[in-house]
Amino acid sequence: MIYFHNDYAEGCHESILQRLVQTNLEQTPGYGTDPYCAAAAERIRVLCEDPSLSVHFLVGGTQTNMTVIAAALRAYQGVVCAQTGHIHVHETGAVEATGHKVLALPSADGKITAEQVRALVEEHRASEAMEHTVQPKMVYISNPTELGTIYSRKELEALSEYCRDNGLYLFLDGARLGYGLEAADNDLTLKDLARLCDVFYIGGTKQGALFGEAVVFSHPALAEDFRYMIKQHGGMLAKGRLLGLQFDALLRDGLYFRMARQANEKADQIRAVLGKLGYPLYVPGSTNQIFVTMPDAVLDELAKSFTFSHECRVDDRHRAVRFCTSWATSQENVDRLCDALRQISKEKKDL
Amino acid sequence: MIYFHNDYAEGCHESILQRLVQTNLEQTPGYGTDPYCAAAAERIRVLCEDPSLSVHFLVGGTQTNMTVIAAALRAYQGVVCAQTGHIHVHETGAVEATGHKVLALPSADGKITAEQVRALVEEHRASEAMEHTVQPKMVYISNPTELGTIYSRKELEALSEYCRDNGLYLFLDGARLGYGLEAADNDLTLKDLARLCDVFYIGGTKQGALFGEAVVFSHPALAEDFRYMIKQHGGMLAKGRLLGLQFDALLRDGLYFRMARQANEKADQIRAVLGKLGYPLYVPGSTNQIFVTMPDAVLDELAKSFTFSHECRVDDRHRAVRFCTSWATSQENVDRLCDALRQISKEKKDL
Amino acid sequence: MIYFHNDYAEGCHESILQRLVQTNLEQTPGYGTDPYCAAAAERIRVLCEDPSLSVHFLVGGTQTNMTVIAAALRAYQGVVCAQTGHIHVHETGAVEATGHKVLALPSADGKITAEQVRALVEEHRASEAMEHTVQPKMVYISNPTELGTIYSRKELEALSEYCRDNGLYLFLDGARLGYGLEAADNDLTLKDLARLCDVFYIGGTKQGALFGEAVVFSHPALAEDFRYMIKQHGGMLAKGRLLGLQFDALLRDGLYFRMARQANEKADQIRAVLGKLGYPLYVPGSTNQIFVTMPDAVLDELAKSFTFSHECRVDDRHRAVRFCTSWATSQENVDRLCDALRQISKEKKDL
Amino acid sequence: MIYFHNDYAEGCHESILQRLVQTNLEQTPGYGTDPYCAAAAERIRVLCEDPSLSVHFLVGGTQTNMTVIAAALRAYQGVVCAQTGHIHVHETGAVEATGHKVLALPSADGKITAEQVRALVEEHRASEAMEHTVQPKMVYISNPTELGTIYSRKELEALSEYCRDNGLYLFLDGARLGYGLEAADNDLTLKDLARLCDVFYIGGTKQGALFGEAVVFSHPALAEDFRYMIKQHGGMLAKGRLLGLQFDALLRDGLYFRMARQANEKADQIRAVLGKLGYPLYVPGSTNQIFVTMPDAVLDELAKSFTFSHECRVDDRHRAVRFCTSWATSQENVDRLCDALRQISKEKKDL
Repeated sequence: MIYFHNDYAEGCHESILQRLVQTNLEQTPGYGTDPYCAAAAERIRVLCEDPSLSVHFLVGGTQTNMTVIAAALRAYQGVVCAQTGHIHVHETGAVEATGHKVLALPSADGKITAEQVRALVEEHRASEAMEHTVQPKMVYISNPTELGTIYSRKELEALSEYCRDNGLYLFLDGARLGYGLEAADNDLTLKDLARLCDVFYIGGTKQGALFGEAVVFSHPALAEDFRYMIKQHGGMLAKGRLLGLQFDALLRDGLYFRMARQANEKADQIRAVLGKLGYPLYVPGSTNQIFVTMPDAVLDELAKSFTFSHECRVDDRHRAVRFCTSWATSQENVDRLCDALRQISKEKKDL
Repeated sequence: MIYFHNDYAEGCHESILQRLVQTNLEQTPGYGTDPYCAAAAERIRVLCEDPSLSVHFLVGGTQTNMTVIAAALRAYQGVVCAQTGHIHVHETGAVEATGHKVLALPSADGKITAEQVRALVEEHRASEAMEHTVQPKMVYISNPTELGTIYSRKELEALSEYCRDNGLYLFLDGARLGYGLEAADNDLTLKDLARLCDVFYIGGTKQGALFGEAVVFSHPALAEDFRYMIKQHGGMLAKGRLLGLQFDALLRDGLYFRMARQANEKADQIRAVLGKLGYPLYVPGSTNQIFVTMPDAVLDELAKSFTFSHECRVDDRHRAVRFCTSWATSQENVDRLCDALRQISKEKKDL
Repeated sequence: MIYFHNDYAEGCHESILQRLVQTNLEQTPGYGTDPYCAAAAERIRVLCEDPSLSVHFLVGGTQTNMTVIAAALRAYQGVVCAQTGHIHVHETGAVEATGHKVLALPSADGKITAEQVRALVEEHRASEAMEHTVQPKMVYISNPTELGTIYSRKELEALSEYCRDNGLYLFLDGARLGYGLEAADNDLTLKDLARLCDVFYIGGTKQGALFGEAVVFSHPALAEDFRYMIKQHGGMLAKGRLLGLQFDALLRDGLYFRMARQANEKADQIRAVLGKLGYPLYVPGSTNQIFVTMPDAVLDELAKSFTFSHECRVDDRHRAVRFCTSWATSQENVDRLCDALRQISKEKKDL
Repeated sequence: MIYFHNDYAEGCHESILQRLVQTNLEQTPGYGTDPYCAAAAERIRVLCEDPSLSVHFLVGGTQTNMTVIAAALRAYQGVVCAQTGHIHVHETGAVEATGHKVLALPSADGKITAEQVRALVEEHRASEAMEHTVQPKMVYISNPTELGTIYSRKELEALSEYCRDNGLYLFLDGARLGYGLEAADNDLTLKDLARLCDVFYIGGTKQGALFGEAVVFSHPALAEDFRYMIKQHGGMLAKGRLLGLQFDALLRDGLYFRMARQANEKADQIRAVLGKLGYPLYVPGSTNQIFVTMPDAVLDELAKSFTFSHECRVDDRHRAVRFCTSWATSQENVDRLCDALRQISKEKKDL
């Protein structure tokens, strides 16, 4: 089987392995207070062009989301997101387990707009019995979204402006951030994110690290005492240097971005073949996730040699699926997938 | 101002006041272990025709909902309800504050169907990564619903059957239960509720008590150690007899049901006038809550003498509002409202 | 049986009943937005001589404690109290259920000192791994304490000063506040409490109300959005006026304090008899709770006609028990208890 | 500086690194559903001689403790432990953050006895108002304890028997389990743990893994749906195979136990030197943690070249500290420490 199921089926980029081997017997302080975490944090501040940023490293995405959100909100406050938001649908209620309601907004492409947030907040504030409803206090977005789409600078600026003018926090989940920043149609930079968001994270797990997410706070109050939050929520790795080491390796010489760009380009190749074969994208996109609608017959045949993930049923004979490329996807495997797509499509058409 | 805003604008039925005065200086054990609570619980078991029921008294509805739901669910389990469900929209995230996600289903009339629950549960169970999503474990319905509609016996049986066959609990919020059971088109009885639900409650606050909700468990495992849950969630009244006394008074000689029926009849009078005046019901109903769509001009005039509550804007010139009758609504006030509706409608039409 | 078990065995002072009857059919807005709550809050501000205080009414003590504490703390912060503190031992973990650790300090008399708090906070702050332990952020004291003792002004000033100088909040549980303020050796006033605490409450349930606690915030940030907290934690009474009415009645013409003083005086009579009979107080006190060590034989005989509560076993033949007087304790019942104490003690001595 | 501060200052045993390198580009399913996790789980079942055990892998100790405890308890139930228990003092209230009270028992050596648990449970059950206090439902012990001591088989059997007879769960935190099982005076086996505990874990982080704890359930009900719990609490590693790989490597050919034995032997060497120099152990022990009371002057000098951790102040001139050996401690560093201890002690004596 060849995996296009997700972007975390392999281990990590070899430069990380090398660093692990080289540093293995060094003795360092624990819990993220080591020189490697310090170096990686500094590297991030430089990339974001903001020396005041507070940077922390956690192990995984769900852990990061719940810890950041719980750190930001008071008990009666909720977090606004798209109905497709990872925190709403794929984290087993981790945010609610910290006591906070997720306020989901309708979304066709995984994104939400400043206008939607405005409408929600205004409805809340206009209510005769405001305190009977959860107070919207934070906006959570993913970039790229769970559907592989990306925010434009203009869209992010609109969200940021609304949030700042109205006392809400803006939090960007960057589990796949590199794929977004390297998308052909992207116009956002790390500097923009640090400027426009109150907190965001740079994902490692899905971008070539063994694990790890780098949380970046530009809003000082949110970062206050964040290490207590990490510890309380089980995210403080004893050998915290493993996180620092990885991000230091990934962010050195642009490796992180180079790997993401290559994955996007491979996804573009697959998108091109799918287009030629006449399969409509379920959601248009330019990152490493491809959502496409295909006939069951073709997918069933394809599933004999390739993995991909089920998104939803479209009609009696078609379903939408996701193909992912990653830093580890070989050109050989892309070619095999493209060949198989052509071959099976031809066969099935003949039938 | 004459209040049609809600059904809890006054104190309580005079028979309750009399009992409070008569018993005031009696000494009883606290926390619901007194003879009045015992008598009221027994009265409920008799009305439900089930001597095995476990009955507990709490102070208010939000408190009851969060305590019952938290008692039933393990950490990763959620409660399914209509998107209009009280727990979803009007309890400031009280259920989430106990750690549990509310899984909201679309609903036009405030009700959900067995089929909707089935689809949700099957989708969960069919998922490739089931444990990444909240496990649906309890179904929460209100009867009457927040939109004043009621479940038929057939609908409730379908929900109950699906839940029992699939390991879910069925919880019925009866904050306005009497109005539902006394609706002209109702075919459910207390006995049915005890038979079909795992837990439900008989509302007092909105039905003539000063406060209080009587929780009835037919599922023994849910009732286990429930007093710990009440205490932990702040619902254990030191002078618990106040709750027992009130339910004992309400449920004696059918007072509770008689008051509800009278309120429904008054609502019917108002509905009849609204119908004659050509105002369409926003949601059809037969209980004490009337949801109707009316022109802003009429409502603005009406608001000078009467209170009612805002439901939503329908179009640029119309909005939906709610009028409530209650055990305390006088015929005189109903007549005044009906006269005013006729008068204002006529004036506005003339314009 | 004659109850000396607690101070909430009866209903309420008759002036409250009268107000309930008089106002029963008035229509008011719900949820504490009515004129009675406004009047009672104003009365409290006047008594505290501070027009800036924010006053809210809740139903019971556990509910009040968990709601106030949850409002004040961030997720990783804890509340410091005596190991006998009500929140630590008698609230079924309600504070922990909101996610916060209770940090208990040793105490023989139910009180804690500024010095103890200082030592705890300094140990925390000096820790090599501060963020691995709960951050002490609020101090919870009861006055009178659970053992019937009271804080002097000097002691409270020391606690207040330490807390303010070190960024902690001071919260005083006044479930029996009147008994404390009316104790013969008390030198605190309501004005002092408003000045020295960040938040405190004036208890109603144990002081002649049917139920109800009046929370008083002098720290504005703690009061922010407190109504959301009340609603979320199930403490927002639909007919909130019942709370306002009661406090308005209790605080009019000094009734609240007069009732407390009379209860203290009756407790003094009992203490005097116990002293003459040679029974040592388990904890010395001057309020309505009497903790005394007595022989099992005497207590077993006494228990045939009187209720009292078990505190702890002292040795093989003695145990400590609590007798409570209240606003409702009649002189007749005090005399009966004193007579019985004398009689049984004499008989048992003869044996 | 030479680290004796803790047992997690280095990376991991080289056999783990080799496995990481060898398997890096393999594609596996995520979230612990891969063959490596399956193999490691099977290895544990074999070592415990119980094919029915349910095994799960988490990243760290705090995460494991809070997830296991939250899985086991209903909302009003608490977990009993020694006052030195890791969950009570060093996890920033992570257990309380899941809503559960930690019920701490006094302990001089880090252990608790069946008798202590019995007394606590009986006091709870005998209470007049049982439901006003947290229900003790789980017993948490560490082996070795936080003070380096170990339970005998007889002690563990007594705890187990009491728990089973009285409906409590027994949970053993084995963050340093290997050091305990390899202690010279140990008489427990993995098989015993599986037989006597309802759930325990085999620690990796402090025993030569990069990270990871292997949770072993022998009580089937506790294991039910545990993967939901892991995900909800942020402990589900996307590349879960990293955990399986490590435990598979550690548990192959007895490496895990061999490393622990060697660390204990090195600790014995240090203990012997300390004994000869006349420094009393703060707590006697036979595992890799040495708690010793020493003069400030000696410690201050030692601290110039060696790290160790502060336990507590003993008197004006002495404090208790901890030295840790680990799988990675070299004989050379042990010799250096012993030499320095002898040298500094001699110098200071001369003064």
